[in-house]
Amino acid sequence: MKNTANNITWHCATVTREMREKQNRHKSVIVWFTGLSSSGKSTIAHVVEEQLHQMGCKTFVFDGDNVRHGINKNLGFSREDRKENIRRIGEMCKLFIEAGVIALTAFISPYREDRNMIRQMAKDGDFIEIYCDCCLEVCESRDVKGIYARARTGEIPEFTGISAPYEIPESPEVIINTENITIGECVAKVINYLSERGIINRNLTRHRK
Amino acid sequence: MKNTANNITWHCATVTREMREKQNRHKSVIVWFTGLSSSGKSTIAHVVEEQLHQMGCKTFVFDGDNVRHGINKNLGFSREDRKENIRRIGEMCKLFIEAGVIALTAFISPYREDRNMIRQMAKDGDFIEIYCDCCLEVCESRDVKGIYARARTGEIPEFTGISAPYEIPESPEVIINTENITIGECVAKVINYLSERGIINRNLTRHRK
Repeated sequence: MKNTANNITWHCATVTREMREKQNRHKSVIVWFTGLSSSGKSTIAHVVEEQLHQMGCKTFVFDGDNVRHGINKNLGFSREDRKENIRRIGEMCKLFIEAGVIALTAFISPYREDRNMIRQMAKDGDFIEIYCDCCLEVCESRDVKGIYARARTGEIPEFTGISAPYEIPESPEVIINTENITIGECVAKVINYLSERGIINRNLTRHRK
Repeated sequence: MKNTANNITWHCATVTREMREKQNRHKSVIVWFTGLSSSGKSTIAHVVEEQLHQMGCKTFVFDGDNVRHGINKNLGFSREDRKENIRRIGEMCKLFIEAGVIALTAFISPYREDRNMIRQMAKDGDFIEIYCDCCLEVCESRDVKGIYARARTGEIPEFTGISAPYEIPESPEVIINTENITIGECVAKVINYLSERGIINRNLTRHRK
Protein backbone atom coordinates (compact mmCIF):
# COMPACT_ATOMS: atom_id res chain seq x y z
CA MET A 1 0.00 0.00 0.00
CA LYS A 2 1.27 3.45 -0.84
CA ASN A 3 2.37 5.47 2.14
CA THR A 4 0.64 8.75 1.47
CA ALA A 5 0.21 11.23 4.30
CA ASN A 6 -3.49 10.48 4.21
CA ASN A 7 -2.81 6.80 4.77
CA ILE A 8 -0.57 7.42 7.74
CA THR A 9 -3.40 9.26 9.46
CA TRP A 10 -5.71 6.35 8.69
CA HIS A 11 -3.27 3.85 10.11
CA CYS A 12 -3.74 5.40 13.55
CA ALA A 13 -7.52 5.37 13.30
CA THR A 14 -9.15 3.27 15.97
CA VAL A 15 -12.70 3.08 17.18
CA THR A 16 -12.56 3.36 20.96
CA ARG A 17 -14.87 2.13 23.69
CA GLU A 18 -15.82 5.75 24.41
CA MET A 19 -16.85 6.29 20.78
CA ARG A 20 -19.02 3.17 20.87
CA GLU A 21 -20.59 4.14 24.21
CA LYS A 22 -21.42 7.54 22.79
CA GLN A 23 -22.99 6.00 19.69
CA ASN A 24 -24.91 3.44 21.76
CA ARG A 25 -26.06 6.10 24.25
CA HIS A 26 -25.19 3.92 27.22
CA LYS A 27 -22.07 2.81 29.05
CA SER A 28 -20.77 -0.74 28.88
CA VAL A 29 -20.22 -2.86 32.01
CA ILE A 30 -20.01 -6.44 33.18
CA VAL A 31 -23.13 -7.48 35.12
CA TRP A 32 -22.04 -10.64 36.91
CA PHE A 33 -24.81 -12.74 38.47
CA THR A 34 -23.75 -15.29 41.08
CA GLY A 35 -25.73 -17.70 43.22
CA LEU A 36 -26.80 -21.31 43.66
CA SER A 37 -28.28 -23.35 40.82
CA SER A 38 -31.96 -22.34 40.44
CA SER A 39 -31.44 -19.12 42.41
CA GLY A 40 -32.71 -17.15 39.40
CA LYS A 41 -29.49 -15.89 37.77
CA SER A 42 -30.23 -16.90 34.21
CA THR A 43 -33.91 -15.94 34.27
CA ILE A 44 -33.18 -12.49 35.69
CA ALA A 45 -30.23 -11.92 33.33
CA HIS A 46 -32.33 -12.73 30.26
CA VAL A 47 -35.25 -10.54 31.30
CA VAL A 48 -32.88 -7.68 32.18
CA GLU A 49 -31.38 -8.13 28.73
CA GLU A 50 -34.80 -8.03 27.11
CA GLN A 51 -35.69 -4.78 28.86
CA LEU A 52 -32.34 -3.22 27.99
CA HIS A 53 -32.76 -4.29 24.35
CA GLN A 54 -36.19 -2.66 24.27
CA MET A 55 -34.53 0.53 25.51
CA GLY A 56 -32.12 0.31 22.55
CA CYS A 57 -29.12 -0.93 24.56
CA LYS A 58 -26.53 -3.35 23.20
CA THR A 59 -26.37 -6.46 25.40
CA PHE A 60 -25.22 -10.06 25.55
CA VAL A 61 -25.86 -12.84 28.07
CA PHE A 62 -23.13 -15.41 28.65
CA ASP A 63 -24.37 -18.67 30.10
CA GLY A 64 -23.47 -22.34 30.19
CA ASP A 65 -25.15 -22.97 26.85
CA ASN A 66 -23.08 -20.58 24.78
CA VAL A 67 -19.80 -20.92 26.67
CA ARG A 68 -19.42 -24.50 27.88
CA HIS A 69 -20.34 -25.88 24.44
CA GLY A 70 -18.17 -23.38 22.61
CA ILE A 71 -14.99 -21.65 23.68
CA ASN A 72 -14.73 -23.64 26.92
CA LYS A 73 -15.71 -27.05 25.59
CA ASN A 74 -12.18 -28.31 26.26
CA LEU A 75 -12.54 -27.62 30.01
CA GLY A 76 -13.80 -30.01 32.69
CA PHE A 77 -14.98 -29.39 36.22
CA SER A 78 -11.75 -29.71 38.24
CA ARG A 79 -10.96 -26.72 40.45
CA GLU A 80 -8.30 -25.66 37.94
CA ASP A 81 -10.64 -25.97 34.96
CA ARG A 82 -13.45 -24.14 36.77
CA LYS A 83 -11.07 -21.26 37.40
CA GLU A 84 -9.94 -21.22 33.75
CA ASN A 85 -13.62 -21.32 32.72
CA ILE A 86 -14.30 -18.17 34.77
CA ARG A 87 -11.08 -16.49 33.61
CA ARG A 88 -11.93 -16.93 29.94
CA ILE A 89 -15.48 -15.67 30.53
CA GLY A 90 -14.00 -12.62 32.27
CA GLU A 91 -11.62 -11.95 29.38
CA MET A 92 -14.49 -12.25 26.91
CA CYS A 93 -16.56 -9.83 28.98
CA LYS A 94 -13.67 -7.36 28.80
CA LEU A 95 -13.72 -7.56 25.00
CA PHE A 96 -17.49 -7.11 24.94
CA ILE A 97 -17.36 -3.99 27.11
CA GLU A 98 -14.54 -2.72 24.88
CA ALA A 99 -17.03 -3.27 22.04
CA GLY A 100 -19.58 -1.11 23.88
CA VAL A 101 -21.83 -3.99 24.93
CA ILE A 102 -23.39 -4.58 28.38
CA ALA A 103 -22.14 -8.10 29.16
CA LEU A 104 -24.36 -10.09 31.52
CA THR A 105 -23.19 -13.43 32.90
CA ALA A 106 -25.18 -16.19 34.59
CA PHE A 107 -22.81 -18.68 36.19
CA ILE A 108 -22.90 -20.16 39.70
CA SER A 109 -19.27 -18.95 40.06
CA PRO A 110 -19.11 -20.25 43.65
CA TYR A 111 -15.58 -19.14 44.51
CA ARG A 112 -14.86 -15.66 45.88
CA GLU A 113 -11.30 -15.89 44.52
CA ASP A 114 -12.55 -16.42 40.96
CA ARG A 115 -15.09 -13.60 41.10
CA ASN A 116 -12.52 -11.25 42.61
CA MET A 117 -10.13 -12.20 39.79
CA ILE A 118 -12.65 -10.79 37.30
CA ARG A 119 -13.21 -7.71 39.46
CA GLN A 120 -9.48 -7.06 39.42
CA MET A 121 -9.16 -7.74 35.69
CA ALA A 122 -11.82 -5.11 35.00
CA LYS A 123 -11.37 -1.37 35.37
CA ASP A 124 -12.83 0.36 38.42
CA GLY A 125 -16.61 0.34 38.22
CA ASP A 126 -16.75 -2.00 35.23
CA PHE A 127 -17.63 -5.05 37.31
CA ILE A 128 -21.07 -5.25 38.92
CA GLU A 129 -21.55 -8.30 41.10
CA ILE A 130 -25.15 -9.30 41.70
CA TYR A 131 -25.79 -11.92 44.33
CA CYS A 132 -28.97 -13.94 43.78
CA ASP A 133 -29.64 -14.84 47.40
CA CYS A 134 -31.88 -17.88 47.75
CA CYS A 135 -31.72 -20.66 50.34
CA LEU A 136 -30.92 -24.20 49.26
CA GLU A 137 -34.41 -25.46 50.16
CA VAL A 138 -36.13 -23.01 47.81
CA CYS A 139 -33.56 -23.68 45.05
CA GLU A 140 -34.17 -27.41 45.37
CA SER A 141 -37.94 -26.94 45.28
CA ARG A 142 -37.56 -25.07 41.95
CA ASP A 143 -35.34 -27.73 40.41
CA VAL A 144 -37.46 -28.87 37.49
CA LYS A 145 -34.60 -30.69 35.77
CA GLY A 146 -33.91 -32.83 38.84
CA ILE A 147 -30.23 -31.97 39.04
CA TYR A 148 -30.35 -31.41 42.80
CA ALA A 149 -31.84 -34.90 43.20
CA ARG A 150 -28.99 -36.33 41.11
CA ALA A 151 -26.51 -34.38 43.24
CA ARG A 152 -28.11 -35.76 46.43
CA THR A 153 -27.59 -39.34 45.24
CA GLY A 154 -24.02 -38.53 44.31
CA GLU A 155 -24.64 -39.07 40.59
CA ILE A 156 -23.39 -35.50 40.02
CA PRO A 157 -20.24 -35.06 42.12
CA GLU A 158 -19.04 -31.80 43.65
CA PHE A 159 -22.35 -30.02 43.19
CA THR A 160 -22.46 -26.49 44.59
CA GLY A 161 -24.54 -26.28 47.76
CA ILE A 162 -24.66 -30.08 48.20
CA SER A 163 -21.16 -31.49 47.92
CA ALA A 164 -19.14 -28.38 47.01
CA PRO A 165 -19.05 -24.97 48.69
CA TYR A 166 -20.75 -21.74 47.66
CA GLU A 167 -18.89 -18.72 48.96
CA ILE A 168 -21.33 -15.85 49.56
CA PRO A 169 -20.13 -12.52 48.10
CA GLU A 170 -18.70 -10.20 50.74
CA SER A 171 -19.60 -6.90 49.15
CA PRO A 172 -21.60 -7.35 45.95
CA GLU A 173 -22.98 -4.25 44.27
CA VAL A 174 -26.51 -5.67 44.42
CA ILE A 175 -28.14 -8.38 46.54
CA ILE A 176 -31.45 -9.77 45.35
CA ASN A 177 -33.27 -12.17 47.62
CA THR A 178 -35.21 -14.10 45.02
CA GLU A 179 -37.23 -16.23 47.44
CA ASN A 180 -40.36 -14.15 47.81
CA ILE A 181 -40.41 -11.51 45.11
CA THR A 182 -41.51 -11.67 41.48
CA ILE A 183 -39.11 -11.79 38.56
CA GLY A 184 -40.34 -8.32 37.66
CA GLU A 185 -39.23 -6.98 41.04
CA CYS A 186 -35.84 -8.70 40.72
CA VAL A 187 -35.33 -7.22 37.26
CA ALA A 188 -36.38 -3.76 38.41
CA LYS A 189 -33.67 -3.83 41.10
CA VAL A 190 -31.01 -4.41 38.46
CA ILE A 191 -32.39 -1.85 35.99
CA ASN A 192 -32.68 0.73 38.78
CA TYR A 193 -29.10 0.11 39.84
CA LEU A 194 -27.82 0.57 36.26
CA SER A 195 -29.87 3.74 35.96
CA GLU A 196 -28.71 5.19 39.29
CA ARG A 197 -25.10 4.50 38.36
CA GLY A 198 -25.60 6.38 35.08
CA ILE A 199 -24.79 3.32 32.97
CA ILE A 200 -28.12 3.58 31.21
CA ASN A 201 -30.22 6.69 30.91
CA ARG A 202 -33.90 5.98 30.54
CA ASN A 203 -34.48 9.39 28.99
CA LEU A 204 -31.67 9.14 26.46
CA THR A 205 -32.00 5.56 25.31
CA ARG A 206 -34.18 5.08 22.29
CA HIS A 207 -37.41 3.19 22.71
CA ARG A 208 -37.94 0.94 19.72
CA LYS A 209 -40.68 -1.53 18.92
CA MET B 1 -39.62 -15.81 42.72
CA LYS B 2 -43.34 -16.28 42.45
CA ASN B 3 -44.46 -18.37 39.53
CA THR B 4 -47.15 -16.18 38.05
CA ALA B 5 -48.27 -16.77 34.48
CA ASN B 6 -46.64 -13.48 33.57
CA ASN B 7 -43.34 -14.71 34.91
CA ILE B 8 -43.48 -17.93 32.95
CA THR B 9 -43.79 -15.94 29.74
CA TRP B 10 -40.84 -13.83 30.80
CA HIS B 11 -38.72 -16.87 31.50
CA CYS B 12 -38.80 -17.74 27.79
CA ALA B 13 -37.85 -14.23 26.71
CA THR B 14 -34.63 -14.11 24.76
CA VAL B 15 -33.09 -11.47 22.59
CA THR B 16 -32.08 -13.16 19.35
CA ARG B 17 -29.42 -12.36 16.80
CA GLU B 18 -32.16 -11.45 14.33
CA MET B 19 -33.63 -8.92 16.78
CA ARG B 20 -30.21 -7.34 17.26
CA GLU B 21 -29.52 -7.24 13.52
CA LYS B 22 -32.84 -5.53 12.97
CA GLN B 23 -32.10 -2.96 15.68
CA ASN B 24 -28.58 -2.37 14.37
CA ARG B 25 -29.79 -2.12 10.77
CA HIS B 26 -27.05 -4.39 9.50
CA LYS B 27 -26.23 -8.09 9.53
CA SER B 28 -23.45 -9.56 11.61
CA VAL B 29 -20.61 -11.60 10.10
CA ILE B 30 -17.04 -12.68 10.69
CA VAL B 31 -14.60 -10.79 8.45
CA TRP B 32 -11.44 -12.87 8.67
CA PHE B 33 -8.27 -11.24 7.28
CA THR B 34 -5.35 -13.56 6.58
CA GLY B 35 -1.91 -12.93 5.12
CA LEU B 36 1.77 -12.53 5.92
CA SER B 37 3.02 -10.22 8.64
CA SER B 38 2.96 -6.63 7.29
CA SER B 39 0.63 -7.59 4.43
CA GLY B 40 -1.87 -4.98 5.66
CA LYS B 41 -4.42 -7.07 7.62
CA SER B 42 -4.55 -4.99 10.77
CA THR B 43 -4.41 -1.60 9.04
CA ILE B 44 -7.20 -2.50 6.64
CA ALA B 45 -9.33 -4.10 9.39
CA HIS B 46 -9.11 -1.00 11.56
CA VAL B 47 -9.93 1.42 8.75
CA VAL B 48 -12.83 -0.78 7.62
CA GLU B 49 -14.03 -0.72 11.22
CA GLU B 50 -13.76 3.07 11.35
CA GLN B 51 -15.83 3.45 8.20
CA LEU B 52 -18.44 0.96 9.42
CA HIS B 53 -18.62 2.77 12.77
CA GLN B 54 -19.19 6.05 10.96
CA MET B 55 -22.08 4.37 9.16
CA GLY B 56 -23.55 3.45 12.55
CA CYS B 57 -22.56 -0.24 12.42
CA LYS B 58 -21.52 -2.25 15.49
CA THR B 59 -18.03 -3.65 15.02
CA PHE B 60 -15.04 -5.11 16.81
CA VAL B 61 -11.50 -5.91 15.67
CA PHE B 62 -9.71 -8.88 17.22
CA ASP B 63 -5.94 -8.72 16.97
CA GLY B 64 -2.87 -9.94 18.77
CA ASP B 65 -3.01 -7.08 21.24
CA ASN B 66 -6.42 -7.82 22.68
CA VAL B 67 -6.33 -11.62 22.36
CA ARG B 68 -2.80 -12.84 23.00
CA HIS B 69 -2.50 -10.69 26.15
CA GLY B 70 -5.95 -11.62 27.38
CA ILE B 71 -8.00 -14.74 26.82
CA ASN B 72 -5.14 -16.55 25.06
CA LYS B 73 -2.28 -15.47 27.29
CA ASN B 74 -1.87 -19.07 28.46
CA LEU B 75 -1.10 -20.25 24.92
CA GLY B 76 2.29 -20.49 23.25
CA PHE B 77 3.29 -20.88 19.63
CA SER B 78 3.42 -24.67 19.19
CA ARG B 79 1.27 -26.01 16.35
CA GLU B 80 -1.27 -27.22 18.93
CA ASP B 81 -1.39 -23.88 20.74
CA ARG B 82 -1.65 -21.94 17.49
CA LYS B 83 -4.65 -24.05 16.55
CA GLU B 84 -6.26 -23.51 19.97
CA ASN B 85 -5.54 -19.77 19.59
CA ILE B 86 -7.47 -19.70 16.32
CA ARG B 87 -10.25 -21.95 17.68
CA ARG B 88 -10.90 -19.64 20.65
CA ILE B 89 -10.88 -16.58 18.39
CA GLY B 90 -13.41 -18.32 16.15
CA GLU B 91 -15.64 -19.18 19.11
CA MET B 92 -15.47 -15.56 20.31
CA CYS B 93 -16.37 -14.34 16.83
CA LYS B 94 -19.42 -16.60 16.93
CA LEU B 95 -20.55 -14.97 20.20
CA PHE B 96 -19.96 -11.50 18.74
CA ILE B 97 -22.05 -12.22 15.65
CA GLU B 98 -24.73 -13.68 17.93
CA ALA B 99 -24.54 -10.29 19.69
CA GLY B 100 -25.17 -8.56 16.36
CA VAL B 101 -21.62 -7.28 15.92
CA ILE B 102 -19.48 -7.39 12.75
CA ALA B 103 -16.38 -9.23 14.03
CA LEU B 104 -13.18 -8.43 12.14
CA THR B 105 -10.00 -10.41 12.81
CA ALA B 106 -6.41 -9.62 11.88
CA PHE B 107 -4.24 -12.70 12.41
CA ILE B 108 -1.67 -14.24 10.08
CA SER B 109 -3.60 -17.54 10.52
CA PRO B 110 -1.25 -19.34 8.12
CA TYR B 111 -2.89 -22.77 8.14
CA ARG B 112 -5.73 -23.63 5.77
CA GLU B 113 -6.92 -26.28 8.23
CA ASP B 114 -7.37 -23.70 11.01
CA ARG B 115 -9.17 -21.18 8.81
CA ASN B 116 -11.44 -23.89 7.43
CA MET B 117 -12.21 -24.94 11.02
CA ILE B 118 -13.67 -21.47 11.63
CA ARG B 119 -15.54 -21.56 8.33
CA GLN B 120 -17.12 -24.85 9.37
CA MET B 121 -17.90 -23.62 12.88
CA ALA B 122 -19.79 -20.65 11.44
CA LYS B 123 -23.14 -20.83 9.70
CA ASP B 124 -23.26 -20.63 5.91
CA GLY B 125 -22.31 -17.15 4.78
CA ASP B 126 -21.19 -15.98 8.22
CA PHE B 127 -17.49 -16.40 7.46
CA ILE B 128 -15.84 -14.01 5.02
CA GLU B 129 -12.21 -14.83 4.32
CA ILE B 130 -10.15 -11.94 3.01
CA TYR B 131 -6.70 -12.75 1.70
CA CYS B 132 -4.23 -9.88 1.92
CA ASP B 133 -1.99 -10.90 -0.94
CA CYS B 134 1.48 -9.35 -0.71
CA CYS B 135 4.82 -10.86 -1.63
CA LEU B 136 7.41 -11.51 1.04
CA GLU B 137 9.79 -8.88 -0.35
CA VAL B 138 7.25 -6.08 -0.02
CA CYS B 139 6.20 -7.28 3.45
CA GLU B 140 9.83 -7.28 4.56
CA SER B 141 10.37 -3.80 3.16
CA ARG B 142 7.44 -2.52 5.27
CA ASP B 143 8.70 -4.15 8.46
CA VAL B 144 9.26 -1.11 10.66
CA LYS B 145 9.52 -3.15 13.86
CA GLY B 146 12.32 -5.29 12.43
CA ILE B 147 10.64 -8.60 13.17
CA TYR B 148 11.50 -10.05 9.75
CA ALA B 149 15.16 -9.21 10.41
CA ARG B 150 14.93 -11.04 13.74
CA ALA B 151 13.27 -13.97 11.98
CA ARG B 152 16.05 -14.03 9.36
CA THR B 153 18.72 -14.36 12.04
CA GLY B 154 16.70 -17.10 13.73
CA GLU B 155 16.06 -15.01 16.84
CA ILE B 156 12.33 -15.53 16.21
CA PRO B 157 11.84 -19.20 15.34
CA GLU B 158 9.10 -20.60 13.09
CA PHE B 159 8.26 -17.23 11.59
CA THR B 160 5.60 -17.37 8.86
CA GLY B 161 7.08 -16.82 5.39
CA ILE B 162 10.66 -17.29 6.61
CA SER B 163 10.88 -20.46 8.66
CA ALA B 164 7.24 -21.57 8.77
CA PRO B 165 4.74 -22.01 5.93
CA TYR B 166 1.94 -19.71 4.84
CA GLU B 167 -0.82 -21.63 3.11
CA ILE B 168 -2.54 -19.39 0.55
CA PRO B 169 -6.36 -19.51 0.77
CA GLU B 170 -7.92 -21.67 -1.95
CA SER B 171 -11.22 -19.85 -2.32
CA PRO B 172 -11.35 -16.73 -0.17
CA GLU B 173 -14.37 -14.46 -0.55
CA VAL B 174 -12.10 -11.48 -1.29
CA ILE B 175 -8.49 -11.20 -2.46
CA ILE B 176 -6.76 -7.86 -2.01
CA ASN B 177 -3.33 -7.44 -3.52
CA THR B 178 -1.98 -4.78 -1.20
CA GLU B 179 1.32 -4.22 -3.01
CA ASN B 180 0.41 -1.34 -5.26
CA ILE B 181 -2.88 0.13 -4.14
CA THR B 182 -3.70 2.63 -1.41
CA ILE B 183 -5.26 1.68 1.90
CA GLY B 184 -8.37 3.54 0.76
CA GLU B 185 -8.68 1.25 -2.26
CA CYS B 186 -8.17 -1.84 -0.11
CA VAL B 187 -10.84 -0.68 2.34
CA ALA B 188 -13.25 0.13 -0.46
CA LYS B 189 -12.99 -3.44 -1.75
CA VAL B 190 -14.10 -4.78 1.64
CA ILE B 191 -16.88 -2.24 2.13
CA ASN B 192 -18.16 -2.87 -1.40
CA TYR B 193 -18.20 -6.62 -0.80
CA LEU B 194 -20.19 -6.20 2.45
CA SER B 195 -22.59 -3.90 0.65
CA GLU B 196 -23.05 -6.20 -2.36
CA ARG B 197 -23.72 -9.14 -0.05
CA GLY B 198 -26.41 -7.09 1.74
CA ILE B 199 -24.62 -7.24 5.07
CA ILE B 200 -24.57 -3.48 5.30
CA ASN B 201 -26.91 -1.14 3.51
CA ARG B 202 -25.41 2.26 2.86
CA ASN B 203 -28.86 3.78 2.49
CA LEU B 204 -30.27 2.31 5.70
CA THR B 205 -27.34 2.72 8.07
CA ARG B 206 -27.34 5.94 10.03
CA HIS B 207 -24.64 8.45 9.28
CA ARG B 208 -23.41 9.96 12.53
CA LYS B 209 -20.70 12.46 13.25
